[in-house]
Amino acid sequence: MSQRLTRGLIQVYYGTGKGKTTAALGLAFRATGHGFKVHMIQFMKGEVKYGEIKAAKNWPNLTITQFGRPEIIAEPEKVDIEEAKKALALAKKTIEEGEYDILILDEVGVAIEMELINVKDVIEILKAKPPHQEVILTGRYMHPKLLEMADLVTEMKMIKHPFVTQGLQARKGIDF
Amino acid sequence: MSQRLTRGLIQVYYGTGKGKTTAALGLAFRATGHGFKVHMIQFMKGEVKYGEIKAAKNWPNLTITQFGRPEIIAEPEKVDIEEAKKALALAKKTIEEGEYDILILDEVGVAIEMELINVKDVIEILKAKPPHQEVILTGRYMHPKLLEMADLVTEMKMIKHPFVTQGLQARKGIDF
Repeated sequence: MSQRLTRGLIQVYYGTGKGKTTAALGLAFRATGHGFKVHMIQFMKGEVKYGEIKAAKNWPNLTITQFGRPEIIAEPEKVDIEEAKKALALAKKTIEEGEYDILILDEVGVAIEMELINVKDVIEILKAKPPHQEVILTGRYMHPKLLEMADLVTEMKMIKHPFVTQGLQARKGIDF
Repeated sequence: MSQRLTRGLIQVYYGTGKGKTTAALGLAFRATGHGFKVHMIQFMKGEVKYGEIKAAKNWPNLTITQFGRPEIIAEPEKVDIEEAKKALALAKKTIEEGEYDILILDEVGVAIEMELINVKDVIEILKAKPPHQEVILTGRYMHPKLLEMADLVTEMKMIKHPFVTQGLQARKGIDF
């Protein structure tokens, strides 16, 4: 039986810097160490190559569910909207059921920015959050209304990045 | 047999915002999913209460070694300097042996800021880093020379924090 948070917050990690998804993952890892149950729902990440997917398979109390297609979205297609809506529906279900102590909506900020889902729908769902549940929102972009609604907001600011300064590409084990 | 990174970088996560240690932890979690070996050396964190310590015990390929005493340091004492020097010596050994793919020096920036260790010694050690090894430095503060030396720098900027805005205290499972 998992313990409960007395007061779950809404946390936001956004910005151009590295470390948003990994901060949410690290928080999940730490929380499971105390016996909390974590559900990470990933928007726009229908890829099995991510190390966290492989790692989570062997980790109790951490569930990662991915939505989206493997390709990077240039122009949003019908399938992208459908996938994002499925992800949001699962977020709604996870909040309504209240079984998980921590819910992570990874890249939700970008899904809103790309108009795959509507910020109003996200806000409605978050309003129904039970008091014991912590919700983490990540994304390069984050809608001002979500920044306003959140209790804790951290901006990950890119100061120096080798993709930019050194033309380096994403590396397996580090960047995915 | 662990694969090797072709090119390991020096990464820095610093700033007033939440998510520095957790970003390093999440990176570790992801990397172990791909079979990498990770050693996290924590400065100034001699506490067993942290969820990541409990979690890491059951996680292969992730070693966390803590140095310091449980109390928060107001004025540095001899024991604090001794502990930080031990942590740095282990960092040196880890780099020299090159066995780990990723080395995390958690809170090293604060240990330098508090003059428990010297930035010159840290730089000397980092210069000996083998090409395949990735090193992650975290801390609220980070010495300008380390920011300059790093390949990838992210500032975690506090935009809103309930410790400040709502007087909320650190919560088990989330903040430690």
